[in-house]
Amino acid sequence: MLETSLADEVLARCDELATFSEEAGRITRTFLCEPMRRLHARLGGWMEAAGLRVRIDAAANLIGLYEGSRDGARVLAIGSHLDTVPDAGKYDGVLGVLLGVAAVQALVRDGRRLPFAIEVIGFSEEEGIRFRAPYLGSRAVAGRLDAALMQRADADGITMADAFRAFGRDPARIDEAAYPAGRLLGYLEVHIEQGPVLEAQGAAVGVVESIAGQSRLWVEFRGQAGHAGTLPMEARHDALAAAAEFVLEVERRARAGAGLRATVGTLTVAPGAVNVVPGVARLSLDVRHARDAVRDAAVADLLTQARAIAARRGVAFAIDQQEHHPAVPADRHLADLLATSIAAAGHDPIRLVSGAGHDAAVMADVAPMAMLFLRSPGGVSHHPDERVLPGDVQAALEVIVGFLHRLAMAVHDFDLAGDA
Amino acid sequence: MLETSLADEVLARCDELATFSEEAGRITRTFLCEPMRRLHARLGGWMEAAGLRVRIDAAANLIGLYEGSRDGARVLAIGSHLDTVPDAGKYDGVLGVLLGVAAVQALVRDGRRLPFAIEVIGFSEEEGIRFRAPYLGSRAVAGRLDAALMQRADADGITMADAFRAFGRDPARIDEAAYPAGRLLGYLEVHIEQGPVLEAQGAAVGVVESIAGQSRLWVEFRGQAGHAGTLPMEARHDALAAAAEFVLEVERRARAGAGLRATVGTLTVAPGAVNVVPGVARLSLDVRHARDAVRDAAVADLLTQARAIAARRGVAFAIDQQEHHPAVPADRHLADLLATSIAAAGHDPIRLVSGAGHDAAVMADVAPMAMLFLRSPGGVSHHPDERVLPGDVQAALEVIVGFLHRLAMAVHDFDLAGDA
Repeated sequence: MLETSLADEVLARCDELATFSEEAGRITRTFLCEPMRRLHARLGGWMEAAGLRVRIDAAANLIGLYEGSRDGARVLAIGSHLDTVPDAGKYDGVLGVLLGVAAVQALVRDGRRLPFAIEVIGFSEEEGIRFRAPYLGSRAVAGRLDAALMQRADADGITMADAFRAFGRDPARIDEAAYPAGRLLGYLEVHIEQGPVLEAQGAAVGVVESIAGQSRLWVEFRGQAGHAGTLPMEARHDALAAAAEFVLEVERRARAGAGLRATVGTLTVAPGAVNVVPGVARLSLDVRHARDAVRDAAVADLLTQARAIAARRGVAFAIDQQEHHPAVPADRHLADLLATSIAAAGHDPIRLVSGAGHDAAVMADVAPMAMLFLRSPGGVSHHPDERVLPGDVQAALEVIVGFLHRLAMAVHDFDLAGDA
Repeated sequence: MLETSLADEVLARCDELATFSEEAGRITRTFLCEPMRRLHARLGGWMEAAGLRVRIDAAANLIGLYEGSRDGARVLAIGSHLDTVPDAGKYDGVLGVLLGVAAVQALVRDGRRLPFAIEVIGFSEEEGIRFRAPYLGSRAVAGRLDAALMQRADADGITMADAFRAFGRDPARIDEAAYPAGRLLGYLEVHIEQGPVLEAQGAAVGVVESIAGQSRLWVEFRGQAGHAGTLPMEARHDALAAAAEFVLEVERRARAGAGLRATVGTLTVAPGAVNVVPGVARLSLDVRHARDAVRDAAVADLLTQARAIAARRGVAFAIDQQEHHPAVPADRHLADLLATSIAAAGHDPIRLVSGAGHDAAVMADVAPMAMLFLRSPGGVSHHPDERVLPGDVQAALEVIVGFLHRLAMAVHDFDLAGDA
C-alpha cells in the first residue's frame, strides 16, 4: 500500500499550519493564543472533511472522532500537540496530528471501520512556554491537571484561567476534558525524533521504547545591583557572573555523563541596564536521562554546585520552581505491534529512547502508550531548519495504518474491545 | 552660613520626586516617559516659586532661568539629569538639580543677583536605558545629538522621534535645544559620587578632577538553537554557554587591571525557552578607566577573547553597536574655585576621578566644566538603597553658594562676563 498522495497532503498541510503564528516571519504558537483559534478552524475543517466529528474540549484540545464499527467501542487516541516553541520548525507536534488525520482518511478511503473508535487529538499545549508548565493539554485529558495552575500568570500577567476565558473555555469546567476511566484502549503518538539516532542508523522510522525522564527547574541568583562605573570589582556581588559560572558548570557536568542532557535555555538579568551591575539573574535548568537515578544525581550535583558558587560570591541562591518527570516505558504489546508494522512495511524496526518529553509520557498514566518516531534530518528541531523527508512521512503513514489493522485483529482475537 | 532648612527641603523633594515612576513600588523613570511629564510639572512649580523662569526645551530638558544683574549676561548652567536606571535610588541625578534650585533660593533669600545668569537644567536623559544611548539631554544642549538617533526604536518598537512627539516635542526642532555659542560661562554639576572614595576619606564632598572614559558595546553570540532533550552535548553550539564564558572573562580581566571596571549589565537569550538550547545571546559590555589607553587596551583584549571563545565553540560573534567616550578633565579654574569654596566651608578639598559618566562630560565640549561630588554611603548607587547624609547635602549647598559668590567675583575681576 503506497500512501504517496496522502503523505504529500500531510506535508502541504504542515506548510499551511506553519502560517498560524504569533510572530510575523517566525513560527511561534503558544497555549491559547489567537492564531491557535484560527488553526483550530482550519484543521477542524480538514478533520470534518475526512469524516471525523470535531469538538474542542474543556482544555482547548481539538479532537476529531472516527466512530468504530459498533456503538460504545473503546477509543484509540492518536495525538500530538499543536503549540510550538518560539521560532519553531513546521513539524514538531503538528505532523503527528496530521498523520493521525491522514490515517483516518486512508481508512475512510478503504471503507474500513475498526472494532474501536479513533480520536485524533491535537493537544492545546505541550511545550511549557507560556505558563512555564508543559503537557497541559494531555494532563487535562488524563485528569492530571493541577487546579492551582489556573492562577499562574504568564509573562504579561494574564492568569491561565483568564487565558481560558479569552479562548472561550470555562476554566471551572476543565475537569470535563478528562476521559472516563476505561474508555481509552490505547494512545499512539507519532512525532519527529528531534535527535540524531534514526538518521545515524539510516532508518525512516523507529519505535520508542521509553521516554527519558526530565527535570525542569527555575532558579535565581540574587546579588546586589550597583553602579557599573564606580563599584570596585572586588566589592561586587554580581548575580550574572554567578549565573555564568553555573551555566558553564551545567555544560561541564552534562558532558561528563553519557546520555545526559542539561540545558540552561532561559536567562534574564535584573535590573538589566548597561551601566548597572546585575542584582538578580534567573535561569531555567532542563536535565534529562533515560535512567532516573542518573538524572536525579546530576540535578543534585548541579544544585550543590550552584550553592557553592553562590556562597563563594556572597550571593543568594534559591529554587523558584521545579518539576521532575520520571522516565516512562512504552506499552510492550503496542510497541511490538508497531515494530511488526514497521517490518511489514519493509523497514528495519529500530527501537530507541526518546530524549524529548512528549504528551505520551502523560497519557501512559491512563492508557497503554506507544510512540512512532520519524527520522529528523541533522537531528534539528525547535528551530526553523527542522525538516522531515517525504519518503519518511509516507513510511510513517503506512506503519500507522498497518498498526491500526493489526490492533483491530488483536482486539478481535483477544476480545480487548469490551463494551463495558 | 547654615543652609539646614534648604537642605531638608531638598531631601524632602527627593523623596517626593521618587514617587514619579513607571513602576509601582520601584523608581524607574526613563526618557520621555509619562511620569517625567508629571515630574516636570511638579519640579517646574518649585522652580517658579523659587523665582526661576521655567521652560521645557526642544529635547525635553526642564530649564529654570535666574536672570543676572544685567541684561544679556552669560549663563552659568547648573545641571544634572532627571531620568533614572530601572529600580533606581532617589538621588542619582535628581539631587543635583534640586541643589541647583536650592542655591538660587539662597540667592533670592539674600536678595542677590550675580553678574551672570543661572540656568538650572534638569536633563531629560542621561542613563542610556530606553534607546541604548546615554546623555541625550546634554548632547542636545551641546548641539551634539546625532540626528540618526531619532530613528532608533526602544524595546517596544517606538522610535525616538515618535517618543518626542508623544511627549509634545517636535523632533524636527531638536536643534533648538543647543545653546548659542559663547552664551555659556560655565557648567556646574553636583552629583552623588556613587562610589567609595569620599566615604573612605571621611569627606562630605569632593571636587572632580576628571571623568573616567567609558566604552559601551552591545555584542552578540550566535550559535544554533536545538532541542534540549535530544541534541547531544558534544553537537551543541550553545550561544549562552559562549556568553557565559565571556561574562567570566570580563570579570577576570577587570579584576586584573587596577582601577578598571568592566560590567556585563544586560544579557538576553533567544529563543529563550526552558527546553531549547539557546541560539542567540546578546549582551552589553561597559568598560571604564581614568586613562583612555588602559580602557582601550582592555576593550581590545576582551574583543579578542570573545572572538576566541566564539571560534572554539563554533558560534559567530558580532558587535552590534559601540560607543567610546574618552576621559574628560574638569576646567582647572572652576575646579579650583570649588576647592576654595570647600575649604572655606570648613572641609578638606578632596579631589577625585569620577568612575561614573555624567552630563558634565558632554557639556565640557561647549563650556568650562566643574563637578562637585557628595559622599555616597556604602558607595551604593543605581539601587534602591542609595543614600545621602543630610549634613553632606547641607555642606554641598554651602559650597555651591560659596562657589557662585566666588565666581561672581572672578567674573567681575577678570571681566569674563562679556555682553557680546
